[in-house]
Amino acid sequence: MVPTVEWKDGAIRLLDQSRLPVHVEFLDCKDVESVAQVIRELKVRGAPAIGVTAAMGVALGAQSIAASDHDGFAKALLVICDQLAATRPTAVNLFWAIERMKRKVAALKGDSVASIKLSLMKESQAILEEDIALCKAMGQHGAALIATGQTVLTHCNAGALATAGYGTALGVIRAAWEQGKQIQVIADETRPVLQGARLTAWELMQDNIPVTLITDNMAGSLMRQGKIHLCVVGADRIAANGDVANKIGTYSVAVLAKAHGIPFYVAAPYSTIDLNTKSGEDIPIEQRNPLEVTTIHGSHPVAPQGVTVYNPAFDVTPAELIAGIITERGVFKPHELAKQFAS
Amino acid sequence: MVPTVEWKDGAIRLLDQSRLPVHVEFLDCKDVESVAQVIRELKVRGAPAIGVTAAMGVALGAQSIAASDHDGFAKALLVICDQLAATRPTAVNLFWAIERMKRKVAALKGDSVASIKLSLMKESQAILEEDIALCKAMGQHGAALIATGQTVLTHCNAGALATAGYGTALGVIRAAWEQGKQIQVIADETRPVLQGARLTAWELMQDNIPVTLITDNMAGSLMRQGKIHLCVVGADRIAANGDVANKIGTYSVAVLAKAHGIPFYVAAPYSTIDLNTKSGEDIPIEQRNPLEVTTIHGSHPVAPQGVTVYNPAFDVTPAELIAGIITERGVFKPHELAKQFAS
Repeated sequence: MVPTVEWKDGAIRLLDQSRLPVHVEFLDCKDVESVAQVIRELKVRGAPAIGVTAAMGVALGAQSIAASDHDGFAKALLVICDQLAATRPTAVNLFWAIERMKRKVAALKGDSVASIKLSLMKESQAILEEDIALCKAMGQHGAALIATGQTVLTHCNAGALATAGYGTALGVIRAAWEQGKQIQVIADETRPVLQGARLTAWELMQDNIPVTLITDNMAGSLMRQGKIHLCVVGADRIAANGDVANKIGTYSVAVLAKAHGIPFYVAAPYSTIDLNTKSGEDIPIEQRNPLEVTTIHGSHPVAPQGVTVYNPAFDVTPAELIAGIITERGVFKPHELAKQFAS
Repeated sequence: MVPTVEWKDGAIRLLDQSRLPVHVEFLDCKDVESVAQVIRELKVRGAPAIGVTAAMGVALGAQSIAASDHDGFAKALLVICDQLAATRPTAVNLFWAIERMKRKVAALKGDSVASIKLSLMKESQAILEEDIALCKAMGQHGAALIATGQTVLTHCNAGALATAGYGTALGVIRAAWEQGKQIQVIADETRPVLQGARLTAWELMQDNIPVTLITDNMAGSLMRQGKIHLCVVGADRIAANGDVANKIGTYSVAVLAKAHGIPFYVAAPYSTIDLNTKSGEDIPIEQRNPLEVTTIHGSHPVAPQGVTVYNPAFDVTPAELIAGIITERGVFKPHELAKQFAS
């Protein structure tokens, strides 16, 4: 599996996810604006991957700060942090990662600016490595929920491509597969940006994990036919009450799963849990460009010009529809999260 | 509104729906095979429109039959009927229309072949005109279910384009609009063939009826926000017990509507009601080409090459999820149909 994001010769090298699966191409970001742009344009996406990339963006930007005193440096860093924080509103990992980098700077107040710059590079790499470790831990806990012979439905891409590696929901599937369980995956294509078709199907095929692609509106029919045994998705933000914001369409899958008695799980690391957000109602939902709906890849029209479009990037699944949240510490009921993850 | 299908200089002129909304183009079918092809390739689609087109196809084919005796003529006509019946398996209007044409021939046993040929042309035109009248009657009955200020969700295209004119589900919406009710329509784009985005949005915009386009996976989120007041869809076949086969994704909409306490209606003429099919389980569901899912318009790839795809064209919505079936005779509970439409 090619790395989603990594340091390469002092630049941030990213797999351009907007070009997959037809083209496997890399982008080298050499300044903060180009990092902000790849996040805005979904060239890197997935809450954990956005967090890791933003942390690396902060570290990258820090290297070019001219100020030699701590206060001047911290002030310049704040501008960089604000620029990266403004890219997307929903995934909390973005803000979590930026805050962690800010805390690092504050903790190193006595150090030289040169030393802080080095420490920030190391911190971003630590976040990246921690992300992979978290995914592997989630995988172990989540794999226990899947029996051999079962078929798992997933929505969007919560895979290696959505993280620094291994994946959250797909990490769970990957771990079950690595344990020798004979499982099948149903991947919702996930309109409008087609992360399921373009990324999840591609990623699973790379690992030879059996995957069948469907359009989003086929999931209900498959559930009624008894062909889906459980659902696992990722998350962009989990509120204190266990409500989950995730890719648009997740809520529909959860309602359908409930109606068919199929357990619906969410896999996410601690950095996705936002105890400062009380419930799903308080999570800001990003509205995106209508062209994502009316065209394919911005160029191929599939709807009349000028049609009114509603295009929220995410929806909120209430805690009561969620059988369990798979974290690096174990699988919890949504209402148990606040206690488990109180810092 | 341009006609979906009509007689033009002895040929069947069809609006090429596979080219909409970017291109408004017409096709002239001059023989049976070209009629079969436009049905197979979804250049004409929608259960009532398929029925009307097939009847016209039978009449068109009849004109070229060389036999001068009734038996020879009837035998040759059977071959034409079989060819048209083999185009698509789910919409019962196709078989209904062909049977009606066969019955016409049987009833005219004493007539000359020349006279029968003329009668078949007239019968196909009668089916076309009846279809529009049925839609207008459905519109009147269904419009009473919609109050001003309400928002109606529809799936796929059950509009003028799916019929000889006016539409079934969109006929209901059109009638409410013509009565001066201020309503809004939410159109599911309806992957994979995008009939909602390409046809429903286009058709409603032509009539200046307010429409907002969404991807299929957004309907649940809108329902949870209280933004949808009722759902109206068409049907490809209604079984004797009131189960409804319709475009893939209809079942998911019905489950979501039920979960949110939103009434879910089906609009269809008597020719869609198939009392010979006991329940939804007995309705054959057409599986279509994976390229519909993995590409847009057969050429623009949106998924990895060689991925396994499940691509049923239809699903079955059980009677218990349906608030009412809007017919030309009135609105009935699904279980009332068998009694109402027993011939």
